[in-house]
Amino acid sequence: MIRQLAILGVGLIGGSLARALRQAGYCERIVGYGRNQENLKKAVELGVIDDYFDNPADAVKGADMVVLAVPLGAISSVVAGIAEHLSEDAVLTDVGSAKQSVVDAVTVGFGSPLTQFVPGHPIAGTEQSGVEASFATLFDQRRVILTPMPQSSDQAVDTVRKMWQATGAEVVDMTITHHDDVLAATSHLPHILAYTLVDLLVGMDEKTDVFRFAAGGFRDFTRIASSSPEMWRDICLNNKVAILPILEQYEQALASVRQVIEAENGQQLLELFTRAKTSRDGFVG
Amino acid sequence: MIRQLAILGVGLIGGSLARALRQAGYCERIVGYGRNQENLKKAVELGVIDDYFDNPADAVKGADMVVLAVPLGAISSVVAGIAEHLSEDAVLTDVGSAKQSVVDAVTVGFGSPLTQFVPGHPIAGTEQSGVEASFATLFDQRRVILTPMPQSSDQAVDTVRKMWQATGAEVVDMTITHHDDVLAATSHLPHILAYTLVDLLVGMDEKTDVFRFAAGGFRDFTRIASSSPEMWRDICLNNKVAILPILEQYEQALASVRQVIEAENGQQLLELFTRAKTSRDGFVG
Repeated sequence: MIRQLAILGVGLIGGSLARALRQAGYCERIVGYGRNQENLKKAVELGVIDDYFDNPADAVKGADMVVLAVPLGAISSVVAGIAEHLSEDAVLTDVGSAKQSVVDAVTVGFGSPLTQFVPGHPIAGTEQSGVEASFATLFDQRRVILTPMPQSSDQAVDTVRKMWQATGAEVVDMTITHHDDVLAATSHLPHILAYTLVDLLVGMDEKTDVFRFAAGGFRDFTRIASSSPEMWRDICLNNKVAILPILEQYEQALASVRQVIEAENGQQLLELFTRAKTSRDGFVG
Repeated sequence: MIRQLAILGVGLIGGSLARALRQAGYCERIVGYGRNQENLKKAVELGVIDDYFDNPADAVKGADMVVLAVPLGAISSVVAGIAEHLSEDAVLTDVGSAKQSVVDAVTVGFGSPLTQFVPGHPIAGTEQSGVEASFATLFDQRRVILTPMPQSSDQAVDTVRKMWQATGAEVVDMTITHHDDVLAATSHLPHILAYTLVDLLVGMDEKTDVFRFAAGGFRDFTRIASSSPEMWRDICLNNKVAILPILEQYEQALASVRQVIEAENGQQLLELFTRAKTSRDGFVG
C-alpha cells in the first residue's frame, strides 16, 4: 500500500498509473505535478489525482512513492527540483523509455547514485497523450521492465514491483543496457521508420495524391507516426547510444534488400520474407 | 450483369470478388481456375464458385468476364494458357498490385495490345491468403484503381467499372505509371520496411529475447510482415522499376534522420516528427 503517491507528469502513463492504483485501492492519496495547469485541473476533475502543485518540490513533500512520468527531456529539471525535498523514506521510480539517461540524470541531480531509486518502464501506451487519454487498465497483463541499479536497495525494488503488480502488470527485471537495446530495436527504430516514411510521402503528396490511395496496411504501419513528436524527439536524443547502432544495421539490411530486388533474386527475397513472416506469426500468435 | 465470370486464382481477392458479385446478384455463374485443387474444392463447398477447371483454357470458355487474380509471378503462364481461348466478346481484367508488368505480360501473351483488356487493382486486402479468408464486403467503400491502356476499348472499361461498382467499391482511373509509383510508395515500400525490420530482429532475438518485449505499436507496425511471402516476392520483382527509386529515396531520408539524431538536433527532429504526425492525422482522420 502507498500512503501518498506523487505523480510528476500526469499524462497518459502517469494518469493511467494513478487510475489503476486508485481502482485497486492501493493508494490513499495521489498528488500531481506538471507544466500544464489545464491538464492538472482536468486530472482533478476526472478524479485521477486528489490535488496538484505547481512545482515538483511541493508535490513530493510527504510522499512515500514518487513517480517521474514527465517527458525524458524534462527529467533533469524535475530531478533538480526534488533533490532537496524527497523524503528519506520515499521510493523514487520513473517510466521513461530510455533508462541510462534517466539513471544519469537522477545520479547527477542527487549528487550520487540514489539507493531509493528504481528505474522502470511500462511497455504500454497508445499514440494518444494527456490525462484525458489515460485509463485504469492500460497496464493490465502488460509487461513492466525494472532496471535496478547496483545501488538500488532491495526494499525499494520490492516496493516498486508491488506497485506495478497492483495495476495488473507482469514485472520483469533487466539490465539497463539490455533494456535500452531491446527498446531501441522494438520501439524506437519502428517509430523512426514510420515517421520517416510518412515525411517522405508528404514531400511526394502534392504531385501524386499519394495518401488518398493508402490502404489499411499503410494505416496500421504508420499508426505510431501519430505519436507525440516531443516525446519521440526526447527518446531519440536520450537513447541515441542504443538507437544509432541498430539504425545503422537497419540501413545496411535495407540496402542489401534493395540489391536483392535489383538483382531480381526471387529465391532470396522469398527466404527473407518467409523468415520474417514465420517469426512474426510466432510471436504474435 | 455478367453471364459467366471466370476467376483465375480463387484466393483472398478472387474469392472476395466472387462473393461480392454473387451477393449483389450481378453474376449468373462463376467458374474458377487455380493451381491448388484443395483450395478450389473448398471454394465450391463454400459456394464462392459454381465449378472449377484444372486449366485456364477451359475456365475461360463461354465466359463474358475473365478476372486474372493469380499471383503476379503466374500471370504470364496463365495468359499464355488463355490467349487462344478467350472469347472475342469477353472482357479481361486483373487485380495485380503492379500494372506495367501485367500489361506487358498480356501484350506479349496475346501478341499485341488487347482492346478487351482493362488493367485493374482493388486497394483492399488483409494479411491473410486463400479462399477461406475471402469475404463479400472486402471491397465495400474501398477504392479500385483502373489503369486503362490507350488501346483498351471504352466499352471494356465501362464493363469493368460497373463490375467493381457492384461490389460497393469506388472506381478511380489512373495512368499505369502513376499507379505503380503510388503503390510503390504507400504499399510496396512499407511491406519491404516491415519485412526487413522483423528479419533484422530475428537475427538479434536469440541473444536478446527481443520480441517478448514488443508492445502494441510494434504489432501494428509489423502486421504487414505477416502477408504472403510469395505474393510479396512477386510484387517486388514486378514493380522493381517503381520500387527501387522510392526505396533509395527512403534510404537517403533515413540516413539523414540518423545524422540529425547523431548531431542531437532536437529542433529538426521535432519538425520532422510534427510534420509527419500532422499529415498522418489529416489523412487518417
